[in-house]
Amino acid sequence: MPKIDPWGDVEITDYEATMEQFGIEPIADLEDRLPDNRLVRRGIVFGHRDLNTVLDARDEGDSFAMMTGIMPSGVFHFGHLGVVEQVLMFQEMGAQLTLCAADIESYATRDMSLEDARELVVEEYLLNYVALGLDLDSTDFYFQSQAGNDHQVRSKLFARHVTQSEFEATYGNADPGKMVSALTQYADILRPQSPERGGPKPTVVPVGIDQDPHVRLTRDVASRYRDAPYLKPASTYHRFMRGLQGGKMSSSDPKSYIALTDSIADAKRKIDEAKTGGRVSVEEHREKGANVEEDTVFELLAYHLVEDDDELRRIRTEYESGAMLSGELKQIAKNRLEQFLRDHQQKREAARPKVEQYVAEHAEAVR
Amino acid sequence: MPKIDPWGDVEITDYEATMEQFGIEPIADLEDRLPDNRLVRRGIVFGHRDLNTVLDARDEGDSFAMMTGIMPSGVFHFGHLGVVEQVLMFQEMGAQLTLCAADIESYATRDMSLEDARELVVEEYLLNYVALGLDLDSTDFYFQSQAGNDHQVRSKLFARHVTQSEFEATYGNADPGKMVSALTQYADILRPQSPERGGPKPTVVPVGIDQDPHVRLTRDVASRYRDAPYLKPASTYHRFMRGLQGGKMSSSDPKSYIALTDSIADAKRKIDEAKTGGRVSVEEHREKGANVEEDTVFELLAYHLVEDDDELRRIRTEYESGAMLSGELKQIAKNRLEQFLRDHQQKREAARPKVEQYVAEHAEAVR
Repeated sequence: MPKIDPWGDVEITDYEATMEQFGIEPIADLEDRLPDNRLVRRGIVFGHRDLNTVLDARDEGDSFAMMTGIMPSGVFHFGHLGVVEQVLMFQEMGAQLTLCAADIESYATRDMSLEDARELVVEEYLLNYVALGLDLDSTDFYFQSQAGNDHQVRSKLFARHVTQSEFEATYGNADPGKMVSALTQYADILRPQSPERGGPKPTVVPVGIDQDPHVRLTRDVASRYRDAPYLKPASTYHRFMRGLQGGKMSSSDPKSYIALTDSIADAKRKIDEAKTGGRVSVEEHREKGANVEEDTVFELLAYHLVEDDDELRRIRTEYESGAMLSGELKQIAKNRLEQFLRDHQQKREAARPKVEQYVAEHAEAVR
Repeated sequence: MPKIDPWGDVEITDYEATMEQFGIEPIADLEDRLPDNRLVRRGIVFGHRDLNTVLDARDEGDSFAMMTGIMPSGVFHFGHLGVVEQVLMFQEMGAQLTLCAADIESYATRDMSLEDARELVVEEYLLNYVALGLDLDSTDFYFQSQAGNDHQVRSKLFARHVTQSEFEATYGNADPGKMVSALTQYADILRPQSPERGGPKPTVVPVGIDQDPHVRLTRDVASRYRDAPYLKPASTYHRFMRGLQGGKMSSSDPKSYIALTDSIADAKRKIDEAKTGGRVSVEEHREKGANVEEDTVFELLAYHLVEDDDELRRIRTEYESGAMLSGELKQIAKNRLEQFLRDHQQKREAARPKVEQYVAEHAEAVR
């Protein structure tokens, strides 16, 4: 049985087996209750647990929440966009938004100083989130290291409700840094339901499936903790985009991703060097057509650069038939990327004064 | 090699071996630099680590601190007095005093609610501390659950500087509740040195030797943590009084201790039933004299009820010679106890309004 390690490097390829193993339901069943969303439509967001509790609350006019975390681990790239688009979907649905910057976790598990984490969070995450449409004013954004006494204490009280064996079965070991990070994350996930934030309410956490262990143990803690009532959090799951060279998209390998702060020239060069499903010769390509499943550039288009399904279908058909060459596909991607990055980077700089002021009001170092 | 478990029930009988194993020095070497103190004089406080750093600071007119914790685990009895008397000695020496009520620890390791812990801390510990002479106004007293965001975060950051193996080697396992409690305790011990309290300064922690694992790992953390400077804390060690029935004095066995809130009648009855070193018959006693080493009543006199060394020596001589019978020894103890308890319980009630007001100003529940 494959373990999923939130701190590891596991590549999830067999999503169906994983869903079955961990009781994750297909999100397609709830699609008509959700706003129209490219990622849901295309099965990129593919699974959920208890999302209906959130949708029921929305339908009843009750309050509900969305919570997600930022793990400051390098530049913000297209692989991070899936979560942000879900955040924006829940924002559109009227969820209370909670956004947590995991600086305690990056300190405890990645040896990053709180100061470096803070800078990374602002430059690489918050500016991009806001440029993409996050309404910071109606979001409970916080750094873990500044979450307040009660939040920290709650994470410590949760320790009574998890055993060392559960930790080891879930995370592989009971390393102190990991344990403290995990406990803090349970408090983060349950924060929208804390007594000072109105108490229990359906809460959805959009996560990569590698983060599911946190969700599962948080659900256990929510049901075991007796000092305040918490509902088990719901969750949604998305597929990971592969790296542009094939394999995993990784913050430590700049050629594997396009950052939202990449220059247009760099971004185009990465597309030029990306792994495609094109054949070795034009003749063979015209004859057999592209292997779209293998094509990282097509994946980028499908995930984030082509909104219209008909248009994507047309591209796919032409590419698969051999009528479109890899170079032509790449040219489409480069054009879209140029437009996207130019537009985004402008918005990003426009967001800077607001974000910096917001953070200055929220940030004080702990030593 | 015997492990010492701060959460366990280990009875330390061979103090010398333990001192050698863990690098604890005899406090007798420093006796002439300390205020005259019955417990030091009689070897009840027997050991220390780095206490000279504190004495040097005192001599130089530099600031230094004393830190101790209250673990709310039952009624306050004579077995707890040893620590309080050391606290008062360091208060007399001019130390900054820090007193921490370990309510997170009692929640995480003893299944006690924060509310019950608070009540116990006030009723059984704080009232007695103040009645015994603690100057609450010049003490940094706090509940762990209200220590403040930065304190909590610091305890989490410390997690990076301890490994799972160290935890397991020190405490026997890496139970989450124990781990969180231990990390919190490191922050407690280092609190007098925190940046907001004036930074690094010699700090002494008077502990029972069963708490030494916390001190040792705190010393490691202090030297490994790089985000703020900390000196390794110093410590003093005292012997445990045996239970009145022989064996361990235990909060769960009321006959084993005399509580500072026991009625005078109850206290006398416990003395009547206490294990002595008297012989089976008066004849044998007159002939062989008492076995003082075995006598729990004599121990109580020596620890806490007879201040004057000459007087104690006289009692011992008479008892050992057989001139004094166990019943007579018990009568001395009962008279002293009656005087002590009457006086103490009066002071205790006198302290109540002040303590309750103090706590009301410091106490707010975390859920």
